[in-house]
Formats: sequence, structure tokens, C-alpha cells
Amino acid sequence: MRNVAIVGAGMTEFGEHFELGIKDLIPMAYAECAAHVDKGIDKTDIEAAWIGELSTTDGFPAGILADTLDLTDVPVSRVENACATGNDAIRNGVLAVASGHYDVVLVVGADKVRETASNATFWEWSAMTRDGAWDYPLGLVAPANFALHVNRYLHESGATKEHMAMIAVKNHHHAVTNPKAQLRYEITVAQVLNSPMVVDPFGLYDCTPQSDGAAAVILAAEEVVQRFTDRPVWVRGVGLGMDRVMHQHKADMTTFPPTVKAARVALTMAGLTPRDVDVAEVHDCFTGVELISYEDLGFADRFEGRKLVERGEHYVGGAIPINPSGGLKAKGHPPGATGIGQCYELFKQLRGEAENQVDRARVALAHNIGGPTAVAAVTVLSNHRS
Amino acid sequence: MRNVAIVGAGMTEFGEHFELGIKDLIPMAYAECAAHVDKGIDKTDIEAAWIGELSTTDGFPAGILADTLDLTDVPVSRVENACATGNDAIRNGVLAVASGHYDVVLVVGADKVRETASNATFWEWSAMTRDGAWDYPLGLVAPANFALHVNRYLHESGATKEHMAMIAVKNHHHAVTNPKAQLRYEITVAQVLNSPMVVDPFGLYDCTPQSDGAAAVILAAEEVVQRFTDRPVWVRGVGLGMDRVMHQHKADMTTFPPTVKAARVALTMAGLTPRDVDVAEVHDCFTGVELISYEDLGFADRFEGRKLVERGEHYVGGAIPINPSGGLKAKGHPPGATGIGQCYELFKQLRGEAENQVDRARVALAHNIGGPTAVAAVTVLSNHRS
Repeated sequence: MRNVAIVGAGMTEFGEHFELGIKDLIPMAYAECAAHVDKGIDKTDIEAAWIGELSTTDGFPAGILADTLDLTDVPVSRVENACATGNDAIRNGVLAVASGHYDVVLVVGADKVRETASNATFWEWSAMTRDGAWDYPLGLVAPANFALHVNRYLHESGATKEHMAMIAVKNHHHAVTNPKAQLRYEITVAQVLNSPMVVDPFGLYDCTPQSDGAAAVILAAEEVVQRFTDRPVWVRGVGLGMDRVMHQHKADMTTFPPTVKAARVALTMAGLTPRDVDVAEVHDCFTGVELISYEDLGFADRFEGRKLVERGEHYVGGAIPINPSGGLKAKGHPPGATGIGQCYELFKQLRGEAENQVDRARVALAHNIGGPTAVAAVTVLSNHRS
Repeated sequence: MRNVAIVGAGMTEFGEHFELGIKDLIPMAYAECAAHVDKGIDKTDIEAAWIGELSTTDGFPAGILADTLDLTDVPVSRVENACATGNDAIRNGVLAVASGHYDVVLVVGADKVRETASNATFWEWSAMTRDGAWDYPLGLVAPANFALHVNRYLHESGATKEHMAMIAVKNHHHAVTNPKAQLRYEITVAQVLNSPMVVDPFGLYDCTPQSDGAAAVILAAEEVVQRFTDRPVWVRGVGLGMDRVMHQHKADMTTFPPTVKAARVALTMAGLTPRDVDVAEVHDCFTGVELISYEDLGFADRFEGRKLVERGEHYVGGAIPINPSGGLKAKGHPPGATGIGQCYELFKQLRGEAENQVDRARVALAHNIGGPTAVAAVTVLSNHRS
């Protein structure tokens, strides 16, 4: 498989874009992405595109990408994989470039969740990301299904709601300096613990907001990278892992097997280990999910994720900075765009251009886990080819 | 790019499966697919999978595939591209095998449209496949949007409703002997012309039925094909073409540019021309769409598609047999499965095993066009590698 690099990345602000649809957000993300290509790029350089999108609130996603970017002369595919959509769209784009069929492709993620005008609503597409016959009718929307996992995890691990709150505090702290973040303010552990209950053990500040937004990356084959930049960010590994959809079929609620599988595949492909990762964007749709993911990604031993939190190692400046962008929790979570927004942040980290720059970042990891905890996607990036 | 072949194909009956969901239909299609692998296949041979699905009525599509086929140890991506979903899912699977990252992958298409139990309905996901702000609210559901094209085509080409009716008659005739077809009975031109009006110029018999069903193919890299069969069907070309989503932006209503683009790409990749095609499965969601597609695919000159019909060249036994399976019109149209069901038929044609066998078929073409006529996918298959 030939090497593939990110040569440009861009994103809109994540937030409540009541006045915008994905027809507006996609061109905004693309414009910044193209502007980040050091030596410039023309749309005629793009040979194919992938769009990661869940909500379809504005209509036909692949067509909207082609139409709004004036890319009707190249193929556009939509990839959907619940909340792992963004990193899986990148994975599909990477495989396509690696095939040799295309040298340069665009991958865009976009979603419009807040106050949509169309017939689809947040809850309707939420149902699409889980089991429609049992889990969803029984009330297992996203907060409820993750709560089942996290409650059991707290019971078995010795971690507490305070550890979860410290993750929320950290992610809000990181977001303050990120101009793309939705919730740019500091919070305290007391605020998190006293916030209104959503579903036990999650209070309001344990939960990601609903967000609108788009993000884009341009992928190029090793052979043509130099046309676009001398500072590419290499996609060293892509992994996607699955699990049973329904919760009565999950063997162990305290771990997410899709994350374990996706990380193993992506890191093996990269020839790296979790210890090599200098910075990570981790899927913190709920604070407890970030905590469990420290272990599933190999950054902490089983049931010891809380020790990273207690020592502050998850902050920029710590041993393994997690979510320097603010994460889903404070940067926001427009599902189709989330994973690509993570890679936007890591692209900047690996080029030394991030707001919360991690010193000498050389290897970075992006991670999504999807709705019913049945899918996870991991992308491993590096500013070194091998 | 390395060569990729289909080594097994299967499908369920297309029809009104009131008692089944995609959780049932996917394993049924896979079982026949695996049974069609001459030297056998084990699930452990499958390294990755793609699912083409639109309706999401049963919930999370990628998870349902992994779960129902016990494939939770391999990555599964969902591809959606309106009614071009099936052939685009195959395209994504082909690119992934061509990359060298996987040797053997599964591509499944499935949809459940009739009397679904879940919150999503036919009309809700129909909205997802077109523009949600203008075309859909103005009434441009599938029959209406294709009617705009076909009315103009009839006006400019000299073709008539009789030509369209003759296509319906031919597809029903082909379906009679296809045990997988939904509408296995002959009809007459008079019946078509006198059938209840759906939207001018389409009467009931000009329209595909709504269908449930699933279809599956197994793709293998050239290097491992011999493990599975000595009679592979090579994927010689894959093409995907786009156009503007909204109808006021279409430059010419009498042709579908996505089909022209997709066919050009796929045939060029194959090193073939339309004249080399011995048999085709063409997207006849409405009879007039098959007629226009004869020209867009290069089987007839502009505005001369009707001559193929007048001479009966579109029947098995004619110069260019179209839809020997019965097509969408009579075999049925569960959107995510449709394109993969086409390749199932052509896999059998190219191995000499079809119900309506085309003599000495060597090159075959499958074609889908999507909802708002903004996307088309073409797959070119052959029993010869080059």
C-alpha cells in the first residue's frame, strides 16, 4: 500500500449555526482547507471526494458536496458509520488513494443538528445509529446507552464522578483558546457535579453539546505530495472496529471492544504503539467515555485511567495530552464532521501550528466511537513518514 | 491498481417481505453468496465489508451487517449514494482491495421499504436522496423528478409512450423465469398504456414497485482468486458520475450527465467501449429512464434509443440485451440492494448460469442512477481479465 498524507485541513467553527445549512458549511470548511495547502491547490487537482454525514437534513449528501463545491465532474461517495463517520470517511479516502486509482482526494464531514428546517430531526437520525427494534424504542438514545457503560465502569474501576468532572474541566480549559470551539469558557469540578442531571451518571457538563459544523482534509499520494506542501502529515494507520449493536449482547460494559480493535489495527499499520502517541483527540461525547477510552487506546492500564486524570497527564504539558482542541465536550460535536475536525486539530499539532501546541508532537491519534458503541474508528498521523 | 474479481454472489428474492427485516435479509443473501463460491469460503476469509443501504429502518446499517453475519472482528462501512448506492458500495470495496490493504472483502446491499416498523418511512428517506430545501418540498419525489426528464425527452426525441410501454413489456417478460423477481408475469403494451396514471408520462406499469431485499458479492484480489474459484468475474471498471442536485440547475433534461460520466470512466478503466458490452442491467426505475439510458450508456445514438426498442434489440437474443433479470421494473428495487442485485445477475450471465442466458456473454455492464438524477454508478464486468 502506498503512503498517503494530509496536505491541507480546514473546519468551520462548531456551534449553533441557526442561519446556515450544510450547503453553507461545506464550502466554508473547504475554503480554509484549501488555504492551508502551502503551495496552493486548485479544484481541478481533486480527483474524487468522500463526505461523512449523518443527519441528511438538507437532502442528498454526496450531491450537496458536489454541487456546493462545483465538483460535479468527480465522484463523491457518502460514508456513514454513526459517530465514527468522520474517521471512517478518511479511512475510505485513504484506501482509495492507496489503490493508485486517485492521487488527490477530498474528504469532508458535515452535519447540521441544531434547529433543522427539514423533516429529519435529531431524534430521527439518532435512531438510525442504533438498533431500531429494541434498543431505541426502549429508550437507549446516546446518553442512556453510554450511561449503562459508564455506570458499570465506575462500579468496577474505583473511578468517580469527580474524575469525570476533571475531564470536563480539562476540555473546557483547552477550548478557551480554540477559536473554532463551541463552549469557550472555563468550568469547575463543582459546577460539573452540581449541573442538572441528564442521565445518571451524566450531568449536563458531562455531555457534549449538539453542534453544527463541517471539516475537510485533502489527501495526497506520496508521489504527488511535494506539489502541495513540504510539510505533509502522513496517515500512518487507519482502523475500524465493530461490536454487537444491542446492549444485551455486549460481553463487558467497562470497555469498548471497537476502540481496542480499531486502535490495534491502526497502530499496527503504523508500526507504532500507544506509547509512541504524543497527542490524541479522543471521542468524549460523555466524560466517562473519554476515561474508558484512555484504557481502550492503551494510554492507561485497565481501570487506571483515573490516574492520568489525578496526575493531570491528560492536559497539554502532561504525558499524554488528550483533546487539546477542547474535544467533543467543549469544541462541539456535529457527528459527520467530528472525526475530520479531530484530524484538522492534529494536522495543526503535527505542524506546530496549534493553539494549544504540544511540544515536539510527532505522532498523533484521532478516535471516534459510534452511537450504540458498536463501531470505532482510529486514525494515526505523523509528521514523519516512517 | 491490481485486478479485483467477484468470486461469489447471492441475493434474496426481491419483493414484499412483510415478515422480514434487513437483519433477516442480509444473512439470506450472504448464505447464497457463500454457496456460489466454487471452492468454498469461510467467514474468516473476509477481511472487511461494505454495506449499501438507504432506509436505515432497522437501525444502524454497518452494525447490523457485522452483527447478523457474526463479522464483528472486521471493519464494516456503510456507503450511501441515493439509488446508485449498490454499485457505489461495490466501487468502494473494489478500491479497498485494489489498495492492497485487504485481499477479500464482502459487499452487501439491503433495504426494507415495505411496511416498516420503525420511525423512518419511505417518504422520509426519499427526502434524503434529493434537495431538502427546494425540490422535495415542491413535490419532486422520484416519479415527479424523473417525469420532468422523460416528458422533455419524449418531446424532443420523437419517442412515445408506446416505446416506454414496450420496455415494461420486455422487462416483465424477462422476469417470468427469474425466481428472484417480484413481478413474475407478462403484461401487454395496452395494459401499460391503460394503467392508472402515477405522474404523466408514467402510468403504474411504467414504475418500479417498492421492494425489500438484499444482495451480496465477495470481491477478491487477483493474487488470491484461485483459492475461491477458477471462474472469477473480473471487475474491469468502476465509475461514479455526479450532476447538480436541483432541477433548475440541469443544463439538459433529455440526458443524464452522471450516467455519461460514470460509463465513460468505467469503460475507459476497462479498456472497452459500449460496443463491447454483451449484456447490461440498466436502472429502469421508470421505463423512460431505461430508454434515455440506452443513449447515455452509448448503446444508441442520441434520440435513437427507440430504434433499439422497435427492433427488439433490447431482448435476450437481440443485439444488446437489457435487464435479462427483469430489471427494477419487474425484478424489484430495494434501493441499497439494487446495484448489487444487478451484479449478481451479471455474475451468473458471465458464468453461463443465468435464467435468461445471453449467448457467449463476455462483457457486462451494471448501471444505477440516483434519486434527483445527481448521481450514477457503473460497474463493468467480464469473464476475461483483459
